Order: sequence, then C-alpha cells, then structure tokens
Amino acid sequence: MIEINTIKEMKQWVLSRKKEGQTVGFVPTMGFLHEGHLSLVKKAKSESDVVIMSVFVNPLQFGEGEDFEEYPRNKHRDEDLAKDHGVDVLFYPDAKEMYPGPMSVSMKVHHGVDVLCGASRPGHFDGVATVVMKLFQITDPDKAFFGMKDAQQVAVIQNMVRDFHLDVDVVPVDIVREEDGLAKSSRNVNLSESERKEAHHLSKTLNQAKVEVVEGRISTSKALEAWTRKELAQRITGKLDYVQVLRFPDLMELTDLQGKIILAVAVFYDRARIIDNITWEIGKGEFNHVS
Amino acid sequence: MIEINTIKEMKQWVLSRKKEGQTVGFVPTMGFLHEGHLSLVKKAKSESDVVIMSVFVNPLQFGEGEDFEEYPRNKHRDEDLAKDHGVDVLFYPDAKEMYPGPMSVSMKVHHGVDVLCGASRPGHFDGVATVVMKLFQITDPDKAFFGMKDAQQVAVIQNMVRDFHLDVDVVPVDIVREEDGLAKSSRNVNLSESERKEAHHLSKTLNQAKVEVVEGRISTSKALEAWTRKELAQRITGKLDYVQVLRFPDLMELTDLQGKIILAVAVFYDRARIIDNITWEIGKGEFNHVS
Repeated sequence: MIEINTIKEMKQWVLSRKKEGQTVGFVPTMGFLHEGHLSLVKKAKSESDVVIMSVFVNPLQFGEGEDFEEYPRNKHRDEDLAKDHGVDVLFYPDAKEMYPGPMSVSMKVHHGVDVLCGASRPGHFDGVATVVMKLFQITDPDKAFFGMKDAQQVAVIQNMVRDFHLDVDVVPVDIVREEDGLAKSSRNVNLSESERKEAHHLSKTLNQAKVEVVEGRISTSKALEAWTRKELAQRITGKLDYVQVLRFPDLMELTDLQGKIILAVAVFYDRARIIDNITWEIGKGEFNHVS
Repeated sequence: MIEINTIKEMKQWVLSRKKEGQTVGFVPTMGFLHEGHLSLVKKAKSESDVVIMSVFVNPLQFGEGEDFEEYPRNKHRDEDLAKDHGVDVLFYPDAKEMYPGPMSVSMKVHHGVDVLCGASRPGHFDGVATVVMKLFQITDPDKAFFGMKDAQQVAVIQNMVRDFHLDVDVVPVDIVREEDGLAKSSRNVNLSESERKEAHHLSKTLNQAKVEVVEGRISTSKALEAWTRKELAQRITGKLDYVQVLRFPDLMELTDLQGKIILAVAVFYDRARIIDNITWEIGKGEFNHVS
C-alpha cells in the first residue's frame, strides 16, 4: 500500500492506472476504520482492479456544535488496517489540501434533505455532496462503495451522480453490526459504558418493528413510527432525534406501507449521535444491497 | 462535422478520442452563433485536436420574467456556422436530455455573485455553474473557451474548476465587437432599430472612462462609476442596470484604482438586456486575454 497526501499525486496515480486499463474502486471514509469500512474495501477489491481509500474528516459536513473536534481519529491504526485489508492507495489529504480557501462554489442538495438526518443537520448533506464531488473528481473511480448505515447519504450521492452524469457506479453495501446488533460506527467509541450496553436496543427495536408489520399488526407509516418511538423511549436513555418511515430510495413520505421502505432512527447520547435503519420491501422481505 | 444529441453518445465519442490521445477543446454556447462564439471556436481549434461546441439554451440560468422564451434560436444557421468554422462535434441536447427531472443536487455559487449581473439575476450563476459542471462531466474537455463579455461567468467557472479540482483549463477570450463597437451578442437581434443605433455608446463610454483614469482625472472606483453612469444616462435611452468597478478576477470591491480592474455595465432595453465591460491594469494598460 502506498499513501498519497496531495491531490496532484493522487490524480497522476489514477491516470496511470487508467492508461493501463485498470478499474478503480473507491472507498471514501472519515477514518477511524471499523469492520463496516473494511466490508466496503472487501467489496471494492472483489469488483475493481485497484482500490483507493480516502481518509478525510470533512469539516464542511459538521454543523456548529457538532462533533468535528470529537470525531475520533487514529492515523496509524487506519494505515495498518487499510494495508492489512489490501487497500492499494490510502489517500490522506489534510484540510488545507482539500480546502486551501473558502469554497466559492459548492454543492447544494435540494431533495431528500429535510428528512432523517438532514432535518436536524442543516447543510450536512451539502457538505457531504461537496466533498464527495471533489473526491470523485480527484480519484475518478469506476465504482464507489458506501455503507447503507448512512442510507440517506447513499440516496443523495446516487442522485448527484445521476444529475451530473458522473461515470461512477455507486454501490450500497449492507450495514455491518457488532455481535449484539449495534451498527458499527466510528462514533461508538464515544458512548459511555452504560450507553454502549443499552445501544443494542436500536437494532433490536427496528427488527421487532419489522415483525409487527410482517405479521400484520401495523400497516401505516404513522403507526410504525409511533410503535418504534414508544418502544425506544422505554428501552433507552438516549434522547430520540427522529424515528422516520420513508419510501426508499427516493426518501418520500408515504401513508400506507407498501413497496420498498426504510425505517430509520437517530438517538442523541451524551457525546455521540447514533443512527441505524432497516430497509425492506413490504410483502417481500429485505432487498439485497451488496453485503 | 457530426451532430450528437444524447449524453451517452457524447461521452462515448469523447472517450474514443481520449483513447487515441487527442485533446478536446470545448466551446459551450446557447446558440444563435455570432462572431464572438466563432472566435472561441477559432481559438479552440488552434489549441486542441478536436473541438466540441454545445448549443443548449439552459433554462436553469434564466430567472422568472427573464427572456428564456425570447432568447433567439436558429438551429440550421448554428449548424451551418459551426460546420463552416471547423467544429468537429455539435452537441445539441434537448431540455429533457439535460434535465430529465428536477435536479436533486445543483451547484451553489457563494462568491462573486452579489455584484454585476449576479446582483440583479438571483440564481443565475447557480444555473450557469450547474449546466457547465454537467457539460464538463459530459465532454471531459482539456480546455474550455469562454468569452470575456461575460467576465463574471469566466470568474465563476474558474473558481468552480479550482474548487472541484477539475482538469479543465478555462481560457478567457477577448470580446468581439461590431464595427461600431457594440459587443457581439445573440441578444442584439432583440434591440429595436433606434436602440441598436445608440447601443455603441456602451463601449465608447467604457473606453472614454478608461481614458479619464489613464490621464489622471479619475482615481477612485466611486468616481469612475459616477462618471460612467452620468455619461451613459446622457447618451442612451436604455435603463441602466449597473455600472460597477471591481478588482479582477476576484470581483472584490476596491476603493482606489489599482491593479487589474474591470469596469462593467448592463443596460435594460425593451426586449434585451445588454452588457459590456473593459478590463485593464492600472498604469499598465489592457492585460491580454486570448483574442
């Protein structure tokens, strides 16, 4: 594995690979790698000749009062993990390299942002779309791999790729979980011991909510949201940010439960905001993302 | 010359040329071609192996009440002119091809938009940046050629290219003028006979304003704007939109006249809004764009 820190060198490396006819898989991350990221790398390796992983904690996607400073970082560990899992290039630019000055022009996300995480994080997806557009221009990937844990991010990036005619195949990859069901996240280290112990209730509740639907006891999105909210309130001490049911992947509201849906939750703990979701097709079961 | 109407075919054509090692010059236009556009083509031909010209009247950059419907169109004439001047590909998509649905994600321009044309055309440069980003992704040009008549557009596009690390060299090309000095524009055909007759005063006044500065009678931007505004009010019947002096190319306001500056004007006539500008370096004369 080589490490590249500058945009210029990164572009040159990609250009050389492309000239050799190789396909490029890209895994953008904010570092502090866990098995979720590594499942993206594994998938990228199986579908690409070479794999670039970027590690960049993007200030633009953190709002005021959010955890940009607290976002966990561990460069040496990331380097070791990336190398061990067969990443070819670790792209590790600093903030000055990515943002030498204020952006004169940026991405603005119009659809699918006033729901889920977007509702409580104004500007978050503008920042995500901006840095991903930059990274796509720098790494020129054939395929880019995103975890379904950030399902809204997957939707936004797919929309951006379509709207700007980018030649990138955005591949959603299923959520990787801890043994107790908690979705893997770099932010999990910021949970206190007691928070960590109860956090498995997020995924458990989502799964049970699905059973309520499958077994016919719930048939509207309002009822599904209410059931999930009530159960979570009883099971966890964290403060509920949202419980929301939407059509997937266009993230439109729906009344009766039908077609592909996402049930998503976000919970504020003391030093971390934790999200999770479950997607399935009503009457048909889970639809497969790459896993 | 071949004509291409779909994004898919356009991308395939470019990919084939790139594989052959050819460089691509790109001239984006809204059609109704005049010598200004053709000077861009000439320059593009001299600096590129193949030249793509796009003709697309971009609805996104017209505001409510602006002249999207009245914007002149003449496809056959454009085809003939493009062919005669050595364009290799005329990219002529329809609105549905470029915007199959509403954009979920678009470009947002933050700097250099509350001045000149941006001040009276809210959202205009967002629309310009969005369509140019789309066109750049589709045509993947090595160089793209823009007329200095839309100096603010040149600045915005250069900023976007820098901010998103695009591998496009944005080449500004000097304004082409009618014999009487009126800057060539597709909109000039919407001038009435009497408006057309007096419109040469825009460029004459700009040139004389420069003389006032060069000969030391004006030394501040406020005085330069006031002089120009007063002279134009006496000479033309059109309604002044703006007269503005800014640093170029960053379009920041300045007090004392020094360095590279732009003096720009916009005038509303009955069925057309006409713009013009002059750029020069104080104490040094005009700085060269490609002409």
